Amino acid sequence: MDYSKIIQEIGEQVSAENDHGNVADYIPELAFVDPDRFGIYLLSNDGTGSGWGNYEQQFSLQSVNKVFALSMAMALKGDKLWQRVGVEPSGNPFNSLVQLEYESGIPRNPLINSGAIVISDILVSALKNPQEEFLAFVQELTQNKDINYNYRIANSERDWGFRNAALANLMKAFGNIENDVEEVLQFYFNLCSIEMSCKELAQSVAFLTHKGMCPATNKQLVSTKQSMRINALMQTCGFYDEAGEFSFRVGLPGKSGVGGGIAAICPGRFTIGLWSPRLNAKGNSVKGMRTLELLTERTGYSIF
Amino acid sequence: MDYSKIIQEIGEQVSAENDHGNVADYIPELAFVDPDRFGIYLLSNDGTGSGWGNYEQQFSLQSVNKVFALSMAMALKGDKLWQRVGVEPSGNPFNSLVQLEYESGIPRNPLINSGAIVISDILVSALKNPQEEFLAFVQELTQNKDINYNYRIANSERDWGFRNAALANLMKAFGNIENDVEEVLQFYFNLCSIEMSCKELAQSVAFLTHKGMCPATNKQLVSTKQSMRINALMQTCGFYDEAGEFSFRVGLPGKSGVGGGIAAICPGRFTIGLWSPRLNAKGNSVKGMRTLELLTERTGYSIF
Amino acid sequence: MDYSKIIQEIGEQVSAENDHGNVADYIPELAFVDPDRFGIYLLSNDGTGSGWGNYEQQFSLQSVNKVFALSMAMALKGDKLWQRVGVEPSGNPFNSLVQLEYESGIPRNPLINSGAIVISDILVSALKNPQEEFLAFVQELTQNKDINYNYRIANSERDWGFRNAALANLMKAFGNIENDVEEVLQFYFNLCSIEMSCKELAQSVAFLTHKGMCPATNKQLVSTKQSMRINALMQTCGFYDEAGEFSFRVGLPGKSGVGGGIAAICPGRFTIGLWSPRLNAKGNSVKGMRTLELLTERTGYSIF
Amino acid sequence: MDYSKIIQEIGEQVSAENDHGNVADYIPELAFVDPDRFGIYLLSNDGTGSGWGNYEQQFSLQSVNKVFALSMAMALKGDKLWQRVGVEPSGNPFNSLVQLEYESGIPRNPLINSGAIVISDILVSALKNPQEEFLAFVQELTQNKDINYNYRIANSERDWGFRNAALANLMKAFGNIENDVEEVLQFYFNLCSIEMSCKELAQSVAFLTHKGMCPATNKQLVSTKQSMRINALMQTCGFYDEAGEFSFRVGLPGKSGVGGGIAAICPGRFTIGLWSPRLNAKGNSVKGMRTLELLTERTGYSIF
Repeated sequence: MDYSKIIQEIGEQVSAENDHGNVADYIPELAFVDPDRFGIYLLSNDGTGSGWGNYEQQFSLQSVNKVFALSMAMALKGDKLWQRVGVEPSGNPFNSLVQLEYESGIPRNPLINSGAIVISDILVSALKNPQEEFLAFVQELTQNKDINYNYRIANSERDWGFRNAALANLMKAFGNIENDVEEVLQFYFNLCSIEMSCKELAQSVAFLTHKGMCPATNKQLVSTKQSMRINALMQTCGFYDEAGEFSFRVGLPGKSGVGGGIAAICPGRFTIGLWSPRLNAKGNSVKGMRTLELLTERTGYSIF
Repeated sequence: MDYSKIIQEIGEQVSAENDHGNVADYIPELAFVDPDRFGIYLLSNDGTGSGWGNYEQQFSLQSVNKVFALSMAMALKGDKLWQRVGVEPSGNPFNSLVQLEYESGIPRNPLINSGAIVISDILVSALKNPQEEFLAFVQELTQNKDINYNYRIANSERDWGFRNAALANLMKAFGNIENDVEEVLQFYFNLCSIEMSCKELAQSVAFLTHKGMCPATNKQLVSTKQSMRINALMQTCGFYDEAGEFSFRVGLPGKSGVGGGIAAICPGRFTIGLWSPRLNAKGNSVKGMRTLELLTERTGYSIF
Repeated sequence: MDYSKIIQEIGEQVSAENDHGNVADYIPELAFVDPDRFGIYLLSNDGTGSGWGNYEQQFSLQSVNKVFALSMAMALKGDKLWQRVGVEPSGNPFNSLVQLEYESGIPRNPLINSGAIVISDILVSALKNPQEEFLAFVQELTQNKDINYNYRIANSERDWGFRNAALANLMKAFGNIENDVEEVLQFYFNLCSIEMSCKELAQSVAFLTHKGMCPATNKQLVSTKQSMRINALMQTCGFYDEAGEFSFRVGLPGKSGVGGGIAAICPGRFTIGLWSPRLNAKGNSVKGMRTLELLTERTGYSIF
Repeated sequence: MDYSKIIQEIGEQVSAENDHGNVADYIPELAFVDPDRFGIYLLSNDGTGSGWGNYEQQFSLQSVNKVFALSMAMALKGDKLWQRVGVEPSGNPFNSLVQLEYESGIPRNPLINSGAIVISDILVSALKNPQEEFLAFVQELTQNKDINYNYRIANSERDWGFRNAALANLMKAFGNIENDVEEVLQFYFNLCSIEMSCKELAQSVAFLTHKGMCPATNKQLVSTKQSMRINALMQTCGFYDEAGEFSFRVGLPGKSGVGGGIAAICPGRFTIGLWSPRLNAKGNSVKGMRTLELLTERTGYSIF
């Protein structure tokens, strides 16, 4: 299939189609971005890539980074991970405290904020130099040593992240955070601040369409089973309380972030990185979701 | 792939493996079943079928029937359906009233009880003879004119179905039930009471692995897109509050019922009907889920 | 204290003061009332009464009747009552299902809808001719044989009372309704439909400022302790989710209804019946609450 | 009435009656207390006092201190206070986050933890030297310059107070905390750590039975109306989710703490300080509540 032509046609169509949606502005640093940036990069399993628009410009990955943290934690801890965090969709807005309260501090899944904070705690416990080692893991995935934390954004999140502090303290009260709350939150805000481009994003998740093996390094990062499970988690939990809508309209595992990025996986065929900062009411990229919807329509490639 | 051999080996392994779990007993009629019944039937897309155990004995499909009601309603109403019911996982026990209250009487999805009651209301409005026409639809799917409602079970559900009556009345209070509450509930309890065998079940959902076309009649029952969406809904919402666990462990769209039945779809490859009445704490068949887990491990066929 | 003069002055002041608030219109029969009716009747413990405005015109008591049902049930069942219903404020809108779900079908208190439905169930079980006997009880309290159910209103409530049907069915599912749901709801809607005037209302609750003894008949209807407890329940639970606000601003036990009526008790001093159909957002009479606030300010008589 | 004799008889009766209930042990410092301490002190409005048992030994007041913080904030801010905190009972366990989430960070009332943290924030904003001035206020109420914070307990609360940190951060996220979260929590934990005896406690709340005037100093601390409102708030919200039960059984405004202390007010007649560290499941002193129940039975003095 000529992905290059398809990507270009869809890119042009979606680019023209609409410009509604708002850039995330809960911290000033995210609000500075040009709302009209729009990039697509599809990396086929045969190694060929097709880009469109601003696909080489880096942006703030935010929650998309949770996939990397989860993958690293699964590789390190195996099934023991699931004593600390569930695998069910949350069914609530992504940062709700209600569910945590009723379920004794065990987050519903590792892709919502509370779950990613528990994953952060697990990594802080398991790694000798958590920040350095996590960054090295992401750098290796993208084969780019310049990938880095954006401390300005991380600190801004820190200054305004009272709701995440509430989540972390509540889980600490339930005994589901081992380390110091401040330290865990710092690690969490840092990991969310990593920036990359659509192209780097498509590369970084390529192991999830290669049964856990990173095609750039031929390293088995997670087992085949774990790779399938990460995809399953993205499918059911990757889009906050719009996971069902995304599954319904697109039919590919994926993960979005408030920076406007989306990573999606078509197992056995391709990965794709998207970026457009205008978000819908649920916090997902309007143009990103629309692009993926058209892509599965055009290619007929969906997991269903 | 030699499904016949795989089914036999897995059937024997799971049969030996365990006998925990309890038969549903909230109505006496369901409790009468032999807890050790166990049947599997895999229908390959090439038309060959492989059965094991009690695969020809009929059992109470219960909630599995919701897939047929949803399919019929989608065919009749198209996208207008989604004004009355959502597509998101519920994140709560399957009959919880809480979510309905907070979300103004709009059920989270059509595969939980509240959602299936709304689907029932839609069918009661849209069909001239709702009960006859729905039954005819299911009979055609299975190519068996003897498929029928079990009125003894339906009436028993009716006598004990106070929680479903609460759901229906609450949605009526919010204006999301058009018809008389009693009439809608009667239709709903009847549809849940339909009985069939594993073999008939695998046949009845075959249109979902053939892009909406029933292979027995060559009729396009729902569009390709609708077929994919029904699969997506089963994937994210088909197993009550264990949908994520099922997705995580099995990785196939499916739907379970408290009678111990499960229907699952491997798009483009096969459908499978399972039955074992012992349920886990979440209300899903223990042996049924285990069988599917081993099947995806053995075949490597999962949507992820 | 010259209550007559105080009532007149406050009546005139409040009458002039404002006319905001809306008449309850969830059933047509309640919406027909003249929104500008306004009556006050204070019955001093020495037997003298003071009326102002439309104090002799009957209106739909609605939830105020719950006080009579509770009193009768307490007299019949004593402390066994509290196995079926709590004594805590609800902290939620008056007809919420959420709390019932989390607390296994035990209503928070007997003055919210769910609690009054349980009380209705208890009376249906305990009385030979529930409707006749309950009416006779209320007729005796007012010393007026013409007090009656308004079946037109009761039937209208019945036709639109889906939320109350949801509550009753949910409690039945939890085993906290003994009788047929329909029968209990009919009794409940009937009891809510009783009509009386401000004057009759002040008389009917006079036993609550006379330690349980009806001053008109010298009968001890409930024990002294029970009388105090009914007052305590009105204090903490009598005004839906505005009980705290009422306690804070007025400081007298009382009970309101959506017909615009309020009964309040100043233990050892007086009872008062009020009626003005315009309701605030919480469903309580605007002029009624304002009158009581001024009354406690003017007299200095409050329980605090 | 001879309170002295009544207090002695009730003290002896309750002392003999039972010894169930457990001392609060969520921080080690509270667990060290002798569980069998039991003190009562009734201060009549005529100035005579009657003590029984360990009524002169100081204990950790904990949440009882919230009454002083509320009183000081009402005196400073007047009705503007109620823009930041409600006056309704919580209807939920005392530290639940759920209600805060649904009600946009506005606590239900100032006597639950979240509400007292908002009151703390208000005092931190309004006072030049918050800690010194608050302590001076409490010292003046008791006429004892030795009343002090117990920093060992305050720091221990701080080290384990993750749930309170969650509450504070959530309210900060909603914009309902003006100052630094750490600073507000430190002030809050300090104020909860103040210790006094039953005798000092009865004296310290005496202004609430004297229409806002402190009898020891003749200073009007809060207005008559404010004094009545503080009593009303204690009545509806003073005993966590057992406020209704307390109102029902005792019928006096009061406030309890996990140290086993209770302050109660009989407006116009007396105040009473109680202490017994064994708590019931709701966190209220078993012997303290029992004493008050017998007291209202014996004296017939209740607000109802």
